[in-house]
Amino acid sequence: MAQQEIRAQIGVYGLGTMGSALALNLADHGFDVAVSNREADWIDAFLPEAAGLSGNVTGHADLADFVAAIASPRTILFMIPSTKPMDMMIDAITPLLSDGDTIIDGGNADFNDTRRRSAALEGTGIHFVGMGVSGGEEGARNGPSMMVGGSDHSWAQLKPMAEAIAAKFHGDPCVAHLGPDGAGHFVKTVHNGIEYADMQMIAEVYGLMRDQAGMDAGQIGQVFDGWREGPVASYLIDITAKALASTDAGTGQPIVDVIRDQAGQKGTGRWTLIEALKMGQSASTIEAAVGARGWSSEGDVRRAAQALLDPATQPADIPGTDDMENALLAARILGHAQGFRVLSAASAEFNWDLDLARIAEIWRAGCIIRSALLDEFAGAVRAGLPHGHLILAPAMRTRLTAALPGLRRVVAAAALSGQPVPALSAALAWHDTMALGRGTANMIQAQRDYFGAHGFERMDQDGAHHGDWLR
Amino acid sequence: MAQQEIRAQIGVYGLGTMGSALALNLADHGFDVAVSNREADWIDAFLPEAAGLSGNVTGHADLADFVAAIASPRTILFMIPSTKPMDMMIDAITPLLSDGDTIIDGGNADFNDTRRRSAALEGTGIHFVGMGVSGGEEGARNGPSMMVGGSDHSWAQLKPMAEAIAAKFHGDPCVAHLGPDGAGHFVKTVHNGIEYADMQMIAEVYGLMRDQAGMDAGQIGQVFDGWREGPVASYLIDITAKALASTDAGTGQPIVDVIRDQAGQKGTGRWTLIEALKMGQSASTIEAAVGARGWSSEGDVRRAAQALLDPATQPADIPGTDDMENALLAARILGHAQGFRVLSAASAEFNWDLDLARIAEIWRAGCIIRSALLDEFAGAVRAGLPHGHLILAPAMRTRLTAALPGLRRVVAAAALSGQPVPALSAALAWHDTMALGRGTANMIQAQRDYFGAHGFERMDQDGAHHGDWLR
Repeated sequence: MAQQEIRAQIGVYGLGTMGSALALNLADHGFDVAVSNREADWIDAFLPEAAGLSGNVTGHADLADFVAAIASPRTILFMIPSTKPMDMMIDAITPLLSDGDTIIDGGNADFNDTRRRSAALEGTGIHFVGMGVSGGEEGARNGPSMMVGGSDHSWAQLKPMAEAIAAKFHGDPCVAHLGPDGAGHFVKTVHNGIEYADMQMIAEVYGLMRDQAGMDAGQIGQVFDGWREGPVASYLIDITAKALASTDAGTGQPIVDVIRDQAGQKGTGRWTLIEALKMGQSASTIEAAVGARGWSSEGDVRRAAQALLDPATQPADIPGTDDMENALLAARILGHAQGFRVLSAASAEFNWDLDLARIAEIWRAGCIIRSALLDEFAGAVRAGLPHGHLILAPAMRTRLTAALPGLRRVVAAAALSGQPVPALSAALAWHDTMALGRGTANMIQAQRDYFGAHGFERMDQDGAHHGDWLR
Repeated sequence: MAQQEIRAQIGVYGLGTMGSALALNLADHGFDVAVSNREADWIDAFLPEAAGLSGNVTGHADLADFVAAIASPRTILFMIPSTKPMDMMIDAITPLLSDGDTIIDGGNADFNDTRRRSAALEGTGIHFVGMGVSGGEEGARNGPSMMVGGSDHSWAQLKPMAEAIAAKFHGDPCVAHLGPDGAGHFVKTVHNGIEYADMQMIAEVYGLMRDQAGMDAGQIGQVFDGWREGPVASYLIDITAKALASTDAGTGQPIVDVIRDQAGQKGTGRWTLIEALKMGQSASTIEAAVGARGWSSEGDVRRAAQALLDPATQPADIPGTDDMENALLAARILGHAQGFRVLSAASAEFNWDLDLARIAEIWRAGCIIRSALLDEFAGAVRAGLPHGHLILAPAMRTRLTAALPGLRRVVAAAALSGQPVPALSAALAWHDTMALGRGTANMIQAQRDYFGAHGFERMDQDGAHHGDWLR
């Protein structure tokens, strides 16, 4: 067929929500796209959506036909589950590929799998790219943020297309080649971890307004709406305001009041924590968010517990919404700072030489955690972080000084009144730990030496010492 | 030699602090013990310590001689690092062993390694036991708490000796066969996780007294000393009081004031968290403690940060020491409750059928976390936990109702005054999360559906639903 002679510049395999949206985005930017899918009828259903876009989109139910339709060296984006299906697809497609072709996993992969797959293809001439894609369906269709890990060769092939379809922040495309093998997927994992923390912090402030200030969904929505132009402005604040303003058609109630208080999770939050722990890091805001999602699944227990437990609360002054806005602002800075610490540790651990400033820059648009603060973060990281800590950057210190009193009042009031704020209080505890030059670990070292003869360092002498309690 | 004809009832390999103490404890209880060690001169140094004890102790530099000196079926306890050295010893000794012999790893092993080693020896006739030993040197010498995982056969061999040397709680030996393969080491890992949390909570209260109440080490020590007879009484409170009362011989200062505020960790706290996360659990008090130890190692950063950061604190009423005692009491209950949840999840995950009440019972004496509360915990678990939650047991609810106001005031004051209390605030946030029948995860589900079309459940209908925001 004549049509086959115009080879596609990229192949997209997997026409679920994200794969379809990315294929349309590519075609919209003039790229010719070959698409395929395990279930052939999805291809037929998809092709009409692509009609009329500036790029040519062809569908191929047969894998060999799909591969043959892509120009060499081939760039093939897989938007399928990054678990066993990805391994099966690699096995199925590699015999059909040639030297210099690139397989891209655009799913939310465990970066350890990405490293394993990259290593397995090393030396075969086939390149493997792990690419994190953030922005949900809307972002994928109109401009996602993309975090790429792989070879320079693959990036040279992918770059023009990725930069064209990416979200733009004042013209700067939100995509970057961050390092080899698992670098892109790791950065996406930490992005999602920060996202977990940010969502949890918003939910905590929502809870304070609902349960302590006695506000209804519409009133709370107006507060969030008012925050959409301030320093705490972000995509998640936007959609929170919109969700709070949404009415359930069936019952006429606010939609948030009919949604069950039980949150799902798919693994990236947990992965961030496990990898952080392995590197001796702690991301306590993300831990609080992952924990809260887990506990939310125990609804029956919580309802039984509410009837059994005496909250034993204390009188508290419920903070105003300005304090709550400041609490979110300070906690978001602290949550991001923890995420950047994990990235920094991973960069050292895996020799990735991650450009943290560039990471902040490509998170300024397209992705779920995009916010007014991210441009400030990017500027701060680009200027060089004192002692490697985002919270020590001058602009962030100014923000924190202004916002911390609000966070303190919110955490204190929540503690007294029985409102759970695990992520906000974890953020504050981390700040205060880092701000305390003389910490309290001397007590822990005294205990460890007492019961286990582990020894301790002294302030005034080098070497390992023991207390007199040891014979 | 005539001496060789009296075969030892047990072999102990590894004469470091813990191995020596356990060998002496065994001999003290009349058991004949063969000992060995990689460095032969440690054996010569050790034997005189064992002279005059009621059991006969023989030393054997050669591994084959050591094995030959032990009565069949042999029970051989290894007190060496549970990492590569353990694997090397298994390889070296198994050719010398016979059907029915048992190798015991008494170190702080990663239970995944214990499972792997057990599986590798499966079917060889050699049995592998993973045994957690808590109590430090003093406990090992005079009565440790021991958590045993392995076969019934191995337990039948070990039991008389283990029960003889174990700590006793009103006559009940603090040792139990908890399940197969990694069960013992897993329970020991969680024990240590709870220990991390308890130590951190004590350090946080110490910090409040030192930094907010302006008390010196001697004054703080007197407060802890006063708590040694109350509901918060525990081994860790004991040694905290003693450590605070200790003076550094060289400087004449309180020893805690010369100890560097930088705590080490060996992995069990981290392992508890990683395994909990893998099972969808969260142990936020342990996470706070592990995090705090990690952050303590960044002393240079903290000292720089203190000079740079404006703590932006708020006026606060510093709680009295009664509130602090109650804060410790409530937080300890909550920390243990999280630990028991992790044990419960692991029991289901690995089909161990763990007897949580028995675990609480063998922690009542000998181990580092022994406390007045543990007997109450054991009674509560033995009576059956409502909804599987320790905090819902009637006795614990009574304790919490009385102690929570103190914890609330402590967390609130710390938040306002800038004193870091990550573990205390994590404990409170978890309590308040579980006590809130209608949580705030509905907001998170609204956000997830908005940006990712993840769907949500409704309060009033079955099935998966989407908001109107989706086209």
